[in-house]
Amino acid sequence: MNTPSSPLATLYLSAPDVIGLVRQKGVQACIEGIAANIRDDFLRWEDFDKSARVANHSREGVIELMPISDDVNYSFKYVNGHPGNTKFGLSTVMAFGVLADVATGTPLLLSELTLTTALRTAAMSALAARTLARPGSRTMAVIGNGAQSEFQVLAFQHLVGITHVRLFDTDAGATAKLAANLRGAGLAVQACASAAEAARGADIITTLTADKTSATIVTPDMVEPGMHINAVGGDCPGKTELHADVLRRGNVFVEYTPQTRVEGDIQQLPADFAVTELWEVLAGRKAGRTRQDEVTVFDSVGFALEDFSALRFMRDTALALGMGERMALIPSLADPKDLFAVVRGDSAQAPQAIRAVSQPEAALA
Amino acid sequence: MNTPSSPLATLYLSAPDVIGLVRQKGVQACIEGIAANIRDDFLRWEDFDKSARVANHSREGVIELMPISDDVNYSFKYVNGHPGNTKFGLSTVMAFGVLADVATGTPLLLSELTLTTALRTAAMSALAARTLARPGSRTMAVIGNGAQSEFQVLAFQHLVGITHVRLFDTDAGATAKLAANLRGAGLAVQACASAAEAARGADIITTLTADKTSATIVTPDMVEPGMHINAVGGDCPGKTELHADVLRRGNVFVEYTPQTRVEGDIQQLPADFAVTELWEVLAGRKAGRTRQDEVTVFDSVGFALEDFSALRFMRDTALALGMGERMALIPSLADPKDLFAVVRGDSAQAPQAIRAVSQPEAALA
Repeated sequence: MNTPSSPLATLYLSAPDVIGLVRQKGVQACIEGIAANIRDDFLRWEDFDKSARVANHSREGVIELMPISDDVNYSFKYVNGHPGNTKFGLSTVMAFGVLADVATGTPLLLSELTLTTALRTAAMSALAARTLARPGSRTMAVIGNGAQSEFQVLAFQHLVGITHVRLFDTDAGATAKLAANLRGAGLAVQACASAAEAARGADIITTLTADKTSATIVTPDMVEPGMHINAVGGDCPGKTELHADVLRRGNVFVEYTPQTRVEGDIQQLPADFAVTELWEVLAGRKAGRTRQDEVTVFDSVGFALEDFSALRFMRDTALALGMGERMALIPSLADPKDLFAVVRGDSAQAPQAIRAVSQPEAALA
Repeated sequence: MNTPSSPLATLYLSAPDVIGLVRQKGVQACIEGIAANIRDDFLRWEDFDKSARVANHSREGVIELMPISDDVNYSFKYVNGHPGNTKFGLSTVMAFGVLADVATGTPLLLSELTLTTALRTAAMSALAARTLARPGSRTMAVIGNGAQSEFQVLAFQHLVGITHVRLFDTDAGATAKLAANLRGAGLAVQACASAAEAARGADIITTLTADKTSATIVTPDMVEPGMHINAVGGDCPGKTELHADVLRRGNVFVEYTPQTRVEGDIQQLPADFAVTELWEVLAGRKAGRTRQDEVTVFDSVGFALEDFSALRFMRDTALALGMGERMALIPSLADPKDLFAVVRGDSAQAPQAIRAVSQPEAALA
């Protein structure tokens, strides 16, 4: 059982807290730390109680819950996907999540996960590419230059060794923004006029589009022998990025098959289309890439275990840096069978019935 | 779309906030307000995107997520059930939840739900009994006198007209605590030596036990013609309270059939055992009690819609009373496609990229 300083004071990391944490540690170090945690957790895949996420769909988008647990920790993420949100000045993807103690059910950490999702998705993509892409891959096409694109590029630069990026987005302003944000990163950056132009000669194609439609961002003519395709944006029913023949041409790797069959690009294909779960490759149980000229596809949708790994990283880093606050999400009772005491009319007793209230992290550290 | 004062500042109601709110409004008014919301929401049952809750089980207990949505609002509750928690001075049931905007996915409210769950469960039970119990019911047996028992008794006093309660718990201290908390409530209270003694002559039997076992709290010999049985504690696989013959003898009413088949007392019976969903009775589509001597059973497990109704009540009441704080769970971006701006090394730009930070409610009201 985890024993935080005060059993019921949940550590709270707000969006500004996590922004401060990432600025202090650096984007690269955070992506590397999360990738290391994801790798560790994927290597003990069978320890986890896994399920496909639970989605509530609406005309405008989707809201999802992603729970997972091992014998010690439980986590879930709340995340939305609303492609039209930028019209309102809002992010298309917003998220937060909780890490809890399996032995008692106590919530240990509540954290923002909007920024963290961008970091963990980039970490996951780079970890998969390090495992599946041709050794010596140097050039990546980035199709879709929105909110997550910088994180993907930096992850591939530092974890995979990418030195050249070729950018395309239907919104030229998004490409200009990505190019500007990459200035000084030590990368050769080229804006392209089409997805096909971006893909030409690339070792890796990353697709990061947000439209909630069955788009065909990557067509068979764009795929060259030996390419690795990192398909990130196709992640919910009716939302795909790859032409079905691109999937048929390559070997397809997934996170968690039951979820990817519903949400991934392979939703276009029969339920018996052969895929390999990435953890099996990491664990040495199944082959990854077997030939230089083989096409590999990582049909990524985002799995709860990656958020579990990221929440562990954020908690450990925040505690090490003394960041965050404590919040009183759960009433702390003098007698747990006497919940009523906290609202009893007898006001002399009520204050004693409430023990811990919100207090700054410093007081507990 | 909901438009809070600041689109990304989530209203936060801590456990102390909700305790203060309930003390200010009164337990009775809160239960009545939540019951009215539950009734309203059950009457538009078909407007909701419903699913059975998602449970992660461990040796010590269970952690569950309970999502639901209509066209406007989405909510979920996190709740655990750990019968051994009182050994550590912790509640067996702890909960919190979120109300969000379906149109954009923005979380509008984060609230404690430990105290609120006790209120909404009592409100639901009393609403069911008002619909199903014999008119003129005055005496209730309360078997299991733990954390939720006071709320159940007060709900039945004010919404159903109960004047006499007969208490039993295997822990005599729990019964003494319940009796003490009911002093001055205007109820005739009797502690009993057994469940059978408590049940004798009662109009209603409420079972509120926490053991994660297939217990047999109510046996057929305890059931008298015309009784209503409010079975609250049997709410997860392997956790039941009623002998199967008690269910066979009565007409059984449930919240949401797919969830109750797995979690409720009817898990002991075949999947085609006839049950009636309570909303159909409330809506006048199906009969409730048809005879004075009929035995009715509310096989309650707790459904996400009740938390949706309770979260609406807490939000509306907190806003009316000016309670709660705003929290920055989601980063507010100057350009939603430029998430990277918040962590860019260029420190001159970063502060502008973060707009809203945590600020007191007063500043936004």
